Amino acid sequence: MDRLECPFCGLKKPLDVFDPFCPRCEEPMLIFNPRTGRAFYREKDLAMEKYGDFLPLGRIERKLSLGEGNTPLVSLDRLRREWNLPPLFAKNETTNPTQSFKDRGTAVAVQKAVSLGIGKIGTVSTGNMAASTAAYGAKAGLQTVVLLKEDSTAEKIGSTGIHGAELFKVRGDYAALFRSSYAIGRRHGIYFMNSIDPLRIEGYKVTGFEIFHQLGARVPRFVFCPVSSGGHLIGLMRAFFDLKKEGISRDLPAFVGVQARGCAPLARAFAQGREKFKRVFKGETVAHAISNPDPPAGNLVLKWIRETGGLITAVTDRQILSAQRELAEMEGIFADPASATTLAGLIKLIKEPTIRLRGEVVLVITGSGLKAMETLEKQAISARSVSLAGLHRIIESPAEL
Amino acid sequence: MDRLECPFCGLKKPLDVFDPFCPRCEEPMLIFNPRTGRAFYREKDLAMEKYGDFLPLGRIERKLSLGEGNTPLVSLDRLRREWNLPPLFAKNETTNPTQSFKDRGTAVAVQKAVSLGIGKIGTVSTGNMAASTAAYGAKAGLQTVVLLKEDSTAEKIGSTGIHGAELFKVRGDYAALFRSSYAIGRRHGIYFMNSIDPLRIEGYKVTGFEIFHQLGARVPRFVFCPVSSGGHLIGLMRAFFDLKKEGISRDLPAFVGVQARGCAPLARAFAQGREKFKRVFKGETVAHAISNPDPPAGNLVLKWIRETGGLITAVTDRQILSAQRELAEMEGIFADPASATTLAGLIKLIKEPTIRLRGEVVLVITGSGLKAMETLEKQAISARSVSLAGLHRIIESPAEL
Repeated sequence: MDRLECPFCGLKKPLDVFDPFCPRCEEPMLIFNPRTGRAFYREKDLAMEKYGDFLPLGRIERKLSLGEGNTPLVSLDRLRREWNLPPLFAKNETTNPTQSFKDRGTAVAVQKAVSLGIGKIGTVSTGNMAASTAAYGAKAGLQTVVLLKEDSTAEKIGSTGIHGAELFKVRGDYAALFRSSYAIGRRHGIYFMNSIDPLRIEGYKVTGFEIFHQLGARVPRFVFCPVSSGGHLIGLMRAFFDLKKEGISRDLPAFVGVQARGCAPLARAFAQGREKFKRVFKGETVAHAISNPDPPAGNLVLKWIRETGGLITAVTDRQILSAQRELAEMEGIFADPASATTLAGLIKLIKEPTIRLRGEVVLVITGSGLKAMETLEKQAISARSVSLAGLHRIIESPAEL
Repeated sequence: MDRLECPFCGLKKPLDVFDPFCPRCEEPMLIFNPRTGRAFYREKDLAMEKYGDFLPLGRIERKLSLGEGNTPLVSLDRLRREWNLPPLFAKNETTNPTQSFKDRGTAVAVQKAVSLGIGKIGTVSTGNMAASTAAYGAKAGLQTVVLLKEDSTAEKIGSTGIHGAELFKVRGDYAALFRSSYAIGRRHGIYFMNSIDPLRIEGYKVTGFEIFHQLGARVPRFVFCPVSSGGHLIGLMRAFFDLKKEGISRDLPAFVGVQARGCAPLARAFAQGREKFKRVFKGETVAHAISNPDPPAGNLVLKWIRETGGLITAVTDRQILSAQRELAEMEGIFADPASATTLAGLIKLIKEPTIRLRGEVVLVITGSGLKAMETLEKQAISARSVSLAGLHRIIESPAEL
């Protein structure tokens, strides 16, 4: 029987997918798993199976998986030399089935939904999570409801709706919509696997385990991750907590959460030394995927970052776009602006005299630039129109090429 | 020393990346590798390393890889039941670093370029290959030239140009541009790794080896693959030829090449029993990625399909769009229309009394729907706009959900 635990007050309750919040603190609760002696099964195919001992799933139904995870850890040698850095890596989550890290969490949550006999799932999302939940819902034959922001683009609607999900563009406050979704879910038996869903967060742990093994059973010194709701970073942190608890590793990485300056409630609270963040009211940034003015796991991120000696920083849109371009031009990775915050954050920290960068540094690339094509307008990309004869002439002249 | 062999007349010549055509037949030549006794190294990380004995590379430079390959083979159980089929799988190549199968070929060709000391690469492409070549060129620090069709969309230009490639939109005949690229390449030392490049084709073999191992060291009975230039299918076929030559397997799959009815020079030649295809002059289909009126490896595809008892078929745009929707709604895979031809072709063959479908059937999903968002307009997807209060009311009424 699965249980939830409040990471603030320690209160425990049975797993309730319709209400994963602490009745006392009102904070999101996490899966409580006191088990130790867990093992890896790295010879297995599915990432969930490799690390199944660390997931709250009885058995893993292969037919519900789209083959998420097993993503590459790419060495960024050219950027490393350019910036005179220690060994630098990108964990490229854009190679997931719906091109974002969300698939790892959705995969675990859908396993749980099916094992509990739940026939309807849903999510509240601005983009990546919508497409991911719709895809896994389709694969499992579940009815799927997606609640989108009013201003969602035709592209986001298309890549979610193609999977047959029921789509609603909801007017009004997004944070209120997030909270309302649980009431709707309880009433109608719809499991809203939102950003801070405790099963979803367990799925993100697998990324941490993969990084550890891809580095040759080593804990990196730094892990940079974009922060929106906080769920992803919490999952990554829990992976390394698990490794330590099992005695597999002694150290933890320093976790660096990166936000966009235009919407940085957690970076601001961190800078001010506050335990709780204040929601912001306008979030304007090119990094739409992390433009979350009221992050539901924000206070937990602040607590754990403080406890583990990490930090939260914010970068400007200009820094983000420049980092997006550098990742693409130097390393061949087309990240969305949200993911590019990781490189932007790293470059910002290089200049800080208080930080000593050493050991391995991992940037978690969470989503594909293909899902944020609108921001490419800001990148001044152009193609020259020529005739075939003109092409010969241009290439003739070495100055031009 | 690498050599090329003409698959028609058997002529051999030293590898020449600037001219991979047979001087006698004018057909694309392939890597000649008489070696046997090759082994797999499945414990390795990179797909190229696992199957390195089967690739014409001296050593594999890890720093040139983006982590291509190792893509999931997803069991399509819901479609299987719906259509009463034998075991059905999708080899999901959209989880490659630039979201298409092209990365496997580019990865091998770029290894060769760097080992030969070539500093400039290029490609002639309408989409997926452009982004792939630009990404790997960036990773390797090579200068990259991409020649695009005149009517290339802003999205294709954006996702290629972000990697810093030099882009030219070239007016005039696409087939003439393809041929001219080799003259330009020779003159200026630019290795044009086009669709039928022999190193690129070797890279596609790895997909075949992965399918074999993912099925538990079994050869599938059928492999469905979209056909454009023909390079991809030739690579897949060569993988299974290699397995047979090594004595690892006894059988070959039946290969089914699928084209879009609107641009089907090979399906037409196959139906008419001709050895050589005739180029078509207008190619109109929603499956832009395979709209190739003059496929450079077309005659070889016809020859090998005939010799191995496979077939080439064509499907209509309506069948393609319906298959795209079914893959997304039933199995959670958002394929581009070109990839959806595989399912459309399978559904078409179910109804043919002469074909007996049995054994394992594999559909090769070559590219992501995210790269063909323009076709989503034809899929009639919509989202309802509601207020938060309205949402409660709608979900209240079970008929609506």
